[in-house]
Amino acid sequence: MINIEVVLSPALLHLNTIRDTNVVVIDILRATSTICTAIHHGANSVKALMSQSETLEWAEKGYLTAAERNGQKIEGFDLGNSPFECMDGKVNGRSIALTTTNGTKCIEAVANDGARNVFSGSFLNLEAMANFLANDKGDVLLLCAGWKDSVNLEDTLFAGALAHELNNRTDCKIDCDAALMSMDIYQMAKVDLISYLKKSSHYKRLSHLHHEEDMVYCLKHSIFETVCGLKDGEMKKF
Amino acid sequence: MINIEVVLSPALLHLNTIRDTNVVVIDILRATSTICTAIHHGANSVKALMSQSETLEWAEKGYLTAAERNGQKIEGFDLGNSPFECMDGKVNGRSIALTTTNGTKCIEAVANDGARNVFSGSFLNLEAMANFLANDKGDVLLLCAGWKDSVNLEDTLFAGALAHELNNRTDCKIDCDAALMSMDIYQMAKVDLISYLKKSSHYKRLSHLHHEEDMVYCLKHSIFETVCGLKDGEMKKF
Repeated sequence: MINIEVVLSPALLHLNTIRDTNVVVIDILRATSTICTAIHHGANSVKALMSQSETLEWAEKGYLTAAERNGQKIEGFDLGNSPFECMDGKVNGRSIALTTTNGTKCIEAVANDGARNVFSGSFLNLEAMANFLANDKGDVLLLCAGWKDSVNLEDTLFAGALAHELNNRTDCKIDCDAALMSMDIYQMAKVDLISYLKKSSHYKRLSHLHHEEDMVYCLKHSIFETVCGLKDGEMKKF
Repeated sequence: MINIEVVLSPALLHLNTIRDTNVVVIDILRATSTICTAIHHGANSVKALMSQSETLEWAEKGYLTAAERNGQKIEGFDLGNSPFECMDGKVNGRSIALTTTNGTKCIEAVANDGARNVFSGSFLNLEAMANFLANDKGDVLLLCAGWKDSVNLEDTLFAGALAHELNNRTDCKIDCDAALMSMDIYQMAKVDLISYLKKSSHYKRLSHLHHEEDMVYCLKHSIFETVCGLKDGEMKKF
C-alpha cells in the first residue's frame, strides 16, 4: 500500500516526512520539464543549484550553465530554462548546472534529507514515472514548487495526474486533503489542460514573455519513457 | 474592482497583504461556524485566544470559557467547540473566551496586522457575508485555517463558495491560483457538500469523535444573516 501525499508549496514541506519516501519535485513550467527533456535528449546529468554565482562556478568543470529568474534567461549563462534549448543535440553528452526561480531550489532543499529517491516530475514522462513508483512500492511525496512559495495551478494539476496514474496501477492510501483536491482538479481539467491553465497566474506571466511554445510542450502527456532522479547529487537517467 | 485572494494555510499567510483588506478567517469544522452561531444566538462577543491558560483567565471577567484541542472539548472549561452548545439561550447575553486547535489562532494572528476588518467565515451566513463584502468594496483575503497548517478540503471549499458569491455580486479580480482552484473545487462539490467532504481527513477525524451532527449543521447554506467581525478585539455582530 503506497501512501501518497501532496505538498502544494515548499513553505508547507516541514509538515511532511521526506525520510524514506520517493519525492517527486514538480515545477511543470518549466524547470523539472526541462530537466527531463535534457536528460532524455542525452545530457549526462543536471545539477540543480540555488544561486547564480554557484552555478557559474560549474563552468570550470566543463558544465553548461543555465539560469532563469522570473521566467527570463539570465545573461552570461549558456542556457535559460526552455526545454527547446535541450533538443537537437545541444546538450548531448554534456552535464548542465541549472538554477531557476522555484524548481531547482526545491530539489536542493530535499536532496539531503534522507529521501528514498528524488525525482524530476513532468507530464512528458508521466506514465514511466507512475510505472516506476508503482513497482518500487515506496511511499510517495509530490512536492509542488509553486511560484515563490505561492500555490500554483500547473504543479497542482500534475500532482493530481500522477496520483491518479499511480492509484490506477496499485493499492494506494490517499488521506491527504491536498492530494484529494489535486486529483479532483486534474479530473476536471484533463480534457484540455491548456485551456484550463490559460487562467493561471504563471501561464499569463510566461505568455507575456512569449513562452507559449514551451508551455504547449510541457503539457504533452507521456511522450517519452526516461525517468530522471538524483544520483550522486545530480539528476540523471534513472 | 475587488481583488480576491485565497490563502490555503496559515503557513502561507506571509505571502499576502493583510493591511487594508477584509480578511475572512475560515475554520468551517468548527471554530468560525461556532463563533457565528454563538453571536447569532445572542452572545455579546467571542474573544479568540491562542492558549488554554489565557482563556481560563477570562472567567474572572464573567466570560464563559470554551476550549477544544484535536476535535475534543477540554476538561475544566464551560464549553467545547460545538455550535449546538451555543443554541437554546445557553450563551444569550454572555461573552465567550474561546481557544481551538486552528481557527482562533488565525484570528489572533491577523487581529493586529492592520486589516480593514477581520470576519468569522461560515456557510451559515454565507450570503450575508458576500453582500457585506460586495457593498464594502475593500479587497478580500480568504484565510483557511486548515489543520495544524495542512491544507484542508472544507475550508478550501468555503473559500471557493464565498469567492463565487462575491464574484456573482460585483466586479472582482481573481488572479490568485489558490482562489481559482478553490472556486473550481466548490463548483464540483456544491451539489452535495457532505458526500464530497466524507473523503476529507477532518471529516473522518470528527466522525470518529461522533461530531456528525455538528458537521451536517456547519455545512448548511445561509440559514441566518448575522455577519460577525472583530470590534475592539472581539468577534461581535457587525
